[in-house]
Amino acid sequence: MRTGTNPTGLVAGFNIPAEIGMDLADVATPSLIIELDAFERNVATLRDRLADAGVRLRAHSKTHKSVDIARYQIEHGGACGICCQKVAEAEVMVAGGIDDVMLSNQVVDRHKIDRLARLSGRARILVCVDDHGNVDDLATAAMRHHGMLECLVEIDVGAGRCGVQPGPDALAIAQKIDSCEGLKFAGIQAYQGSAQHIRSYTERRSAIESAADMTSATVSLLSEHGLDCAIVAGAGTGSYYFEAASGIYNEMQCGSYIFMDADYQRVLDEQDRPIVEFENSLFIWTSIMSKTRADKAVCDAGLKVMSLDSGLPVVFGRDDLEYIECSDEHGVIADPQNNLCLNDRLKLVPGHCDPTCNLHDWYVGIRNDRVECLWPVSARGRAF
Amino acid sequence: MRTGTNPTGLVAGFNIPAEIGMDLADVATPSLIIELDAFERNVATLRDRLADAGVRLRAHSKTHKSVDIARYQIEHGGACGICCQKVAEAEVMVAGGIDDVMLSNQVVDRHKIDRLARLSGRARILVCVDDHGNVDDLATAAMRHHGMLECLVEIDVGAGRCGVQPGPDALAIAQKIDSCEGLKFAGIQAYQGSAQHIRSYTERRSAIESAADMTSATVSLLSEHGLDCAIVAGAGTGSYYFEAASGIYNEMQCGSYIFMDADYQRVLDEQDRPIVEFENSLFIWTSIMSKTRADKAVCDAGLKVMSLDSGLPVVFGRDDLEYIECSDEHGVIADPQNNLCLNDRLKLVPGHCDPTCNLHDWYVGIRNDRVECLWPVSARGRAF
Repeated sequence: MRTGTNPTGLVAGFNIPAEIGMDLADVATPSLIIELDAFERNVATLRDRLADAGVRLRAHSKTHKSVDIARYQIEHGGACGICCQKVAEAEVMVAGGIDDVMLSNQVVDRHKIDRLARLSGRARILVCVDDHGNVDDLATAAMRHHGMLECLVEIDVGAGRCGVQPGPDALAIAQKIDSCEGLKFAGIQAYQGSAQHIRSYTERRSAIESAADMTSATVSLLSEHGLDCAIVAGAGTGSYYFEAASGIYNEMQCGSYIFMDADYQRVLDEQDRPIVEFENSLFIWTSIMSKTRADKAVCDAGLKVMSLDSGLPVVFGRDDLEYIECSDEHGVIADPQNNLCLNDRLKLVPGHCDPTCNLHDWYVGIRNDRVECLWPVSARGRAF
Repeated sequence: MRTGTNPTGLVAGFNIPAEIGMDLADVATPSLIIELDAFERNVATLRDRLADAGVRLRAHSKTHKSVDIARYQIEHGGACGICCQKVAEAEVMVAGGIDDVMLSNQVVDRHKIDRLARLSGRARILVCVDDHGNVDDLATAAMRHHGMLECLVEIDVGAGRCGVQPGPDALAIAQKIDSCEGLKFAGIQAYQGSAQHIRSYTERRSAIESAADMTSATVSLLSEHGLDCAIVAGAGTGSYYFEAASGIYNEMQCGSYIFMDADYQRVLDEQDRPIVEFENSLFIWTSIMSKTRADKAVCDAGLKVMSLDSGLPVVFGRDDLEYIECSDEHGVIADPQNNLCLNDRLKLVPGHCDPTCNLHDWYVGIRNDRVECLWPVSARGRAF
C-alpha cells in the first residue's frame, strides 16, 4: 500500500483517498466512507431476522460491487451466496473467491452467455430466463464448456420490467429448461422491484401480497407438473419482512440494508414513521471549498461522486445545514446561521446508494474516526 | 491489447468493451461510443468560430476526462490548453503530456494545494481563487516547491456558486495575489454556469450580457489600479457566442461541444429552434435483453452507465421508440409498433454528457460502423 506514496498520504496512480491508520480528518474529499460499526450492525440485524424467519439470504452485490463486502456477508452475515446483475460483476466475484453466484437478470447476448457458461466450471452459477430461445442458447453454451447453469424462470409480479407472466407462460419455460442438457431448473425469480420504495406501509404490503399470490399460484402449477422450485427468490431492503413472512419466498435478495440511503429512509413503517432497523453507514465525505456568502457554502461533492436519481443528499447530523443544489463537481449548502468555514468537513447521506458506490474506486472503512480498512469497489463500472 | 483476450473478443481485467477493427455490432453493451466523424466536425466547428471571433479556446476536460481527447483538442481543435476541475484530473493530464492546465475551481485543502504546487514545476498551472487566506496558502506552497502558480480571481457573475462579488472584493484579492512571491496574477474567471442551459435565446443572451457587464467593470477597476487581466475567462457550449462577441472575454472554456447531449439540444436559437451547430457524437450503445410484451422492451443500459440528472436518454434515430423508465441496470423502452427483438442494438443520447462519461472506463471510437480506436477515460473517478 505504501508503494508510490507521496508526502500528502495519497497513493498516486490508484486513486486511493486514504491510508490505513489515518485520521478521518485527513481522508481526501470527496470520497466514499463506511462507518464500520453501523455497517456491521446492519449485517447482523438482517442475518438474525432472516434466521428467525427461516429463509435464506442471497445478498445482492449490485449495491456494493465489492468482493470484500460479499465475503463479509457470507462469513458473518448469513448469506448463502450473492446476486449479481451483470456477467462482468460475476466474473469479478468468482475471481475473488465467491463460489455461489446468481445472475438475477437475463443474459441473452451470445458473447456474454459464453462467458457465463465458462464461469459455471468454476462456481455454482444461477441465471434468470424469460425467453425460450435464450434457454436453447444457455444450454448450448453450458454443454460447450462442460458446465452447468441453474436457471430460474423470472416472472413479472408487478414491476413491469423483465419476466414472463405468472402461470402457464412460466410453466412452459420451466418445462423447456427441465428438458435441456446442461441446464438445471432451479426455481422462480419473483422480484417486485417497484414496491421497494413505496412510502406507505400498507401499500407496500399490498404490492408484495399481490406478488406473493402470483408467485404461489405459479409454484403450485409447476409442482402439479412435477417441477419443484428449490428457490423462490425476490425481496429487497424495503419489503423483505413481507416476503420472508409469506410462506412462499425462501431466498431474499436484499442489497441496500448494509448501507441505507436518503431515499430508503423515506420508506415508512406501520405507524408512518421512518424505518430505523438499519442505520446509515455509507457517506460521502466532503469539504467546504468556497465560502463567500454568509448564508451559503460550496462543498466539493457533486454529480460525479453521487447519483441524483433519487434526490439530493442529506447532510448527516447537521440540522442547521441543507444541501440545496448539485452540479457536476459542486454542492451548494444552505447555511442560514453562517456556521461553516472553509475546509470544514461534512458527511453526506447519498440519495441512492447503489449508483453512488459505482462512481468510486475505494471504500474507506472508518472506526472511531480512524481509517481501519480500504476496500476496492472491485466491480465498479463492470457493466457488460 | 491482445494479452489476456478471451475468445469473445473482450480483454479480461481491463473492462474493455471492444477491440480495434471489430464491427460495431460486436461491441459489448452497454458501453460508451464516439462517432468519430461527428466528433471531429464538432472540434473543427468551434475551432473555426473562435478563430473568426479572435478569442482563445481553453477546452474543458471535465467533459471527457481523456488525455487522448485533450491532445486532439490542442493539436487539431485550436485549444491553447485545457481546464480541469480537480487536482487529480490535472495530475492525470500533466502526466499525459498536457503542459498548460487551468484549475477552473478553488483548491483550498492543504494536501491538494501541495500537489498542485508540485505540478507547477512540470507544466503551466493556473488556478482560481476567491479567498484571501487561500492566496497565502497557495503562495507558501508554490515557494516550497520552487514553482509558480498563476491565479485568476473568480467572480460570481450570476451563477451563485463560487467567486467573490465583482468590483472592489475582486480588486482586493487581485492585489493580494500580485503582492505574493510564488504567484502571478493572471486575470479573471467569470463563468456563468447557470446560463448554459437556459432554453430561451434572449434570456440566455441577457444573462451573459449581465455577466459581461460585471466582468467589464471589474477588469476596468483592476486596470485603474495597474493590474492587467491577461485572461478573462468563462463561457460554455450553451453561450460561448455571446461571450466571444462581448469584447471583454478572451478565453472560452467550452467542454460539451465535442459530444453534445439530450439536454444541450433543448437549448434554442434566436428562432426558437434547437441549435444544430454541434452534432451528437457520444452515445450509449445498448441492447435489448428482455422482450416479453408487445408494446415494450427492456434494454441493458440504466443508471450505472448514464446520469439522469438532466433527464432520460433519447433513442437516436428511432422516432418509433421512447426510453421511458430507468433503473439501476435496466431501461424500459416504449415500442408501440412492436419493432424490437431480443439482442437488437440501439444508440442512446445521454441526458448529460459529463457525468455520463465519468461512469465509463473506455471510449470506443467508431467510424463507418467499425472500431477505430479505444481511448481510456483517463481521469475517470479522479474526484479529489
